[in-house]
Amino acid sequence: MTPSDSFISAPNEIRTPAGLRNEGQPEWNKQRGSHMPVDRYLAFAQEVEDVQLPDRTWPDKKITVAPQWCAVDLRDGNQALIDPMSPERKRRMFNLLVQMGYKEIEVGFPSASQTDFDFVREIIETDMIPEDVTIQVLVQAREHLIRRTFEACEGAPNVIVHFYNSTSKLQREVVFQKDRPAIKKLATDAAELIKTIATDYPNTNWRWEYSPESFTGTELDFALEVCDAVVDVMEATPEHPMIINLPSTVEMITPNIYADQIEWMHRNFKKRDSIILSLHPHNDRGEGVAAAELGYLAGADRIEGCLFGNGERTGNVDLVTLGLNMLTQGVDPQIDFSDINKIRETVEYCNQLRVPERHPYGGDLVFTAFSGSHQDAVNKGLDALASKVRPGANSTEVTWEELRETVWEVPYLPIDPKDVGRDYEAVIRVNSQSGKGGVAYIMKTDHGINMPKAMQTEFSGVVQAITDAEGGEVNSKNMWDVFAGEYLDLDEPLELLSLRVKNAETDDEDAQVSADIRYNGEQRTIEGKGNGPIAAFANALEQVGIDVEVQNYSQQSRTAGDDADAACYIYADVNGAQAWGVGIAGSTTRASMKALTSAINRGVKVQVSRGL
Amino acid sequence: MTPSDSFISAPNEIRTPAGLRNEGQPEWNKQRGSHMPVDRYLAFAQEVEDVQLPDRTWPDKKITVAPQWCAVDLRDGNQALIDPMSPERKRRMFNLLVQMGYKEIEVGFPSASQTDFDFVREIIETDMIPEDVTIQVLVQAREHLIRRTFEACEGAPNVIVHFYNSTSKLQREVVFQKDRPAIKKLATDAAELIKTIATDYPNTNWRWEYSPESFTGTELDFALEVCDAVVDVMEATPEHPMIINLPSTVEMITPNIYADQIEWMHRNFKKRDSIILSLHPHNDRGEGVAAAELGYLAGADRIEGCLFGNGERTGNVDLVTLGLNMLTQGVDPQIDFSDINKIRETVEYCNQLRVPERHPYGGDLVFTAFSGSHQDAVNKGLDALASKVRPGANSTEVTWEELRETVWEVPYLPIDPKDVGRDYEAVIRVNSQSGKGGVAYIMKTDHGINMPKAMQTEFSGVVQAITDAEGGEVNSKNMWDVFAGEYLDLDEPLELLSLRVKNAETDDEDAQVSADIRYNGEQRTIEGKGNGPIAAFANALEQVGIDVEVQNYSQQSRTAGDDADAACYIYADVNGAQAWGVGIAGSTTRASMKALTSAINRGVKVQVSRGL
Repeated sequence: MTPSDSFISAPNEIRTPAGLRNEGQPEWNKQRGSHMPVDRYLAFAQEVEDVQLPDRTWPDKKITVAPQWCAVDLRDGNQALIDPMSPERKRRMFNLLVQMGYKEIEVGFPSASQTDFDFVREIIETDMIPEDVTIQVLVQAREHLIRRTFEACEGAPNVIVHFYNSTSKLQREVVFQKDRPAIKKLATDAAELIKTIATDYPNTNWRWEYSPESFTGTELDFALEVCDAVVDVMEATPEHPMIINLPSTVEMITPNIYADQIEWMHRNFKKRDSIILSLHPHNDRGEGVAAAELGYLAGADRIEGCLFGNGERTGNVDLVTLGLNMLTQGVDPQIDFSDINKIRETVEYCNQLRVPERHPYGGDLVFTAFSGSHQDAVNKGLDALASKVRPGANSTEVTWEELRETVWEVPYLPIDPKDVGRDYEAVIRVNSQSGKGGVAYIMKTDHGINMPKAMQTEFSGVVQAITDAEGGEVNSKNMWDVFAGEYLDLDEPLELLSLRVKNAETDDEDAQVSADIRYNGEQRTIEGKGNGPIAAFANALEQVGIDVEVQNYSQQSRTAGDDADAACYIYADVNGAQAWGVGIAGSTTRASMKALTSAINRGVKVQVSRGL
Repeated sequence: MTPSDSFISAPNEIRTPAGLRNEGQPEWNKQRGSHMPVDRYLAFAQEVEDVQLPDRTWPDKKITVAPQWCAVDLRDGNQALIDPMSPERKRRMFNLLVQMGYKEIEVGFPSASQTDFDFVREIIETDMIPEDVTIQVLVQAREHLIRRTFEACEGAPNVIVHFYNSTSKLQREVVFQKDRPAIKKLATDAAELIKTIATDYPNTNWRWEYSPESFTGTELDFALEVCDAVVDVMEATPEHPMIINLPSTVEMITPNIYADQIEWMHRNFKKRDSIILSLHPHNDRGEGVAAAELGYLAGADRIEGCLFGNGERTGNVDLVTLGLNMLTQGVDPQIDFSDINKIRETVEYCNQLRVPERHPYGGDLVFTAFSGSHQDAVNKGLDALASKVRPGANSTEVTWEELRETVWEVPYLPIDPKDVGRDYEAVIRVNSQSGKGGVAYIMKTDHGINMPKAMQTEFSGVVQAITDAEGGEVNSKNMWDVFAGEYLDLDEPLELLSLRVKNAETDDEDAQVSADIRYNGEQRTIEGKGNGPIAAFANALEQVGIDVEVQNYSQQSRTAGDDADAACYIYADVNGAQAWGVGIAGSTTRASMKALTSAINRGVKVQVSRGL
């Protein structure tokens, strides 16, 4: 028996009795039974029924086209707010949803709240509903509520009337105390009434949606019976299909079971071709997104949800995550997410709830990777993309418009943050967990400092020593200050005061350097020759007893920050100690001399710290 | 063709070209192609590989036992924080995890951070690690880091050394620029080195964990080859198995594909019986919980995650949700979640990040249902539970200890909030979306007011008129004030000043009432007879021209709030207008008289508002 076999039961086996909890555990597992009241809870198969669909087909399918979306922020979302939306907040939400491209929008429960009723009247009477947008209104299967709902919608060109009653085993028992036929009759009576009242409003293109509420807690055969009966009453046809919405009102079990339930219904409806099969997942187990995606694979046509997953308790399924998950697979969500910050700000204003830091696609931290190896990989991934656009280029040398021509493949970032109006936070936020990748990226992008790789390691060590000691983040400005303090503003023991160079541009003669320096507090003029200005300056420094040998040299023009500057990086051996130095100046020669001076001063510091 | 067939491709079909986005859509679907850059993204089957496992078995399995948990809050969680944990915050997190029952705890990445190194030394040297707890440390597959890691762990009795290198297609190309054999060699070299160095530390019970990092982006055959090779090098056996951890480092596709990947590995490992198969899901698509659960069904033994889903970007899978999801199915998570508020407070302190309002089980709003029909159902569900405990009792008449003896089945609440130390917010938070259920529950539970059903409807209408107009919530105190203002503190036009009753306790004679009243500002004494005090008082009131007939009467002792009080509810016809009245008093007779007075004053108000 493999270790795993002892943990997962065979197909459809009923769970082991609680008394055996710790028995049969392998030796390496030291966990012990808790005092959680496990006997108070029934497995889904016992509480509702054991869903059986061994020949399911959904796990072999793929999502290739967007479903019909329906945004229920103004109803399911709104009813779950501590402070439900004011008319002004409602208008903002409605306009946002329209702008994003949603064509079916549930705007309220007008028979249950005067505010909702008034809002529906307002958007109808002030012509706020575009021609291709259908509003949807929720109503319980009761006569006076249904009549009030039609009154609310009078004059709207396209309306989906969404009626529901709970069909679950539990609610039949404890809430309605009615048997199956009586519950079914509630639904068909409502359907009859709606069909009848609708004839009084012939100028509206009415469509129908029925939800067997608490579908996930309903036995499949009964849910099917009720839905088929409603479809019959409403006389739905392939030309005028009605929406049958199967809500995971409470998420009760793993999402594969919900998908099995959906596929079973999909395959067993009497008139499948007259039905638009809709999903409405909630998120009690934190699996609403998975339930929606697997349920969609299982045969659904339509998904109801809210932006950023607002809604009762743990919320409705998040339409933003669903849409952008599709984008990552090259599938057009048919919704515009290009300015996710604006979407988020509006949603936060309307709901008066913050989108959490780690919420997929929209949270503050979701494009952020503080870890060093992640930042390094992101940085390299961006450079690899750039070099596809233009061979040899790195990511700072191509524009985003150019990068956008390539397929996005960067480690740790499922989408290009800029495709939703965000930035490369992944590599521009640095703290004690970050390594050279993040540091190198910020220095390169914000400050035009393209350090040699070996120097990246050295400088990121300097940054990490600070973050380790002080905690928190290092922003771009601070990082520059650290860099300048470490490499640029050094004048002890050596300060270069002025410099004259001869023959630097000729190959025939040695270059000559004459420099005014201050060394250990004493001002002097020194002179030297060499095959270039750097060698000549190094030679001149022997006059004050500095033995310096350049081991690595590179120079670049700064493409960001101050224009036209040159930056020079020198790794030198200074009296036996190695150090990097950096010089920045308008002239390349002066930048080199400053870099050598910087390397010397840092080398001396290393010597001192070693006690040499 | 059913509508759904046009939306979901046949098994393994490649997506339709983007140019066809809007074609083939049914007439009822008004959505149009967006400008999202869909061509920049490849489907998973193209980006990594088309995972094939038609004979998968996981969808027919059920979770019946907890996995081995490993909490990685102090490493993966910590490295993703804006401000990584201080030593104090680290200690608090470690102690919390131990108290909750976690037996494997990843405590840091000691070779990458001095703070981590120091913390590992501290918990070892100060004996903070219980005997049955194994600490785990992460290290990259590089020699100097591995050596430093062993130094950090010296003296600990039980340690898992967790080494990793990225094996994904993308990272091999853009980060490492190495081919498959070279990447595999990185892993086996590290394994060799770890095995060798470990012999220098014979007093520790070392265990090994290897992660092919970015497993989800790795072709299965290569992931298998690397893992099998590492297991060989480490000489794992059924008696001393090693952990092979298959991280969803980036969540790249629907969780059913991850489950297929896990089952494929599970079935193909060369030495499955020498492997503890571990999962480490991230949450980029918002499906980390589903990935963990389906992957566990697919053959895993162990799950790594963080409390409330902290971790890089969108976070690690949430151990709290996973554990409590198990509880809802009657499976012991082997972890103590009985004080979720304390867990949450500690996690928020350590991470300096808030747990969002809608986070399953732990968020502020997740046991809250503002909607009227939901509150009504919860209220009825609680009463149904109570009557199982004691026939006829409602939920305020049994203690929670008694309720706890029953199986939990209440609409909209997957667990009893009190099982995790929370309260019935579902029915005790009331705003404009709430109906009579919430109002009735608060009045009953907090104020001992057990209104007749018809009166619940009236009073919740009063509350809703206020919330509709003013927005926001009505708390328990405010609701009492509204109730008192509406029913109790009425003395216009009728005020009852004092009352004398005779023969109230005898059946033989009529009761006699003499009352001092003020009516329309004028003080009088009135007298009347009847078959009880109420009838006598009603009769007396005819002397001032009040024609009152009691239509509904009920009385109860208040079981909450002030003791020993009686509350009386009277529905009366007052000069042709109907109204409810309430009286509360120490004596039942006085409570009745006050209730009748209240009904009269409210009835008069109704008459006035009708212009009678």
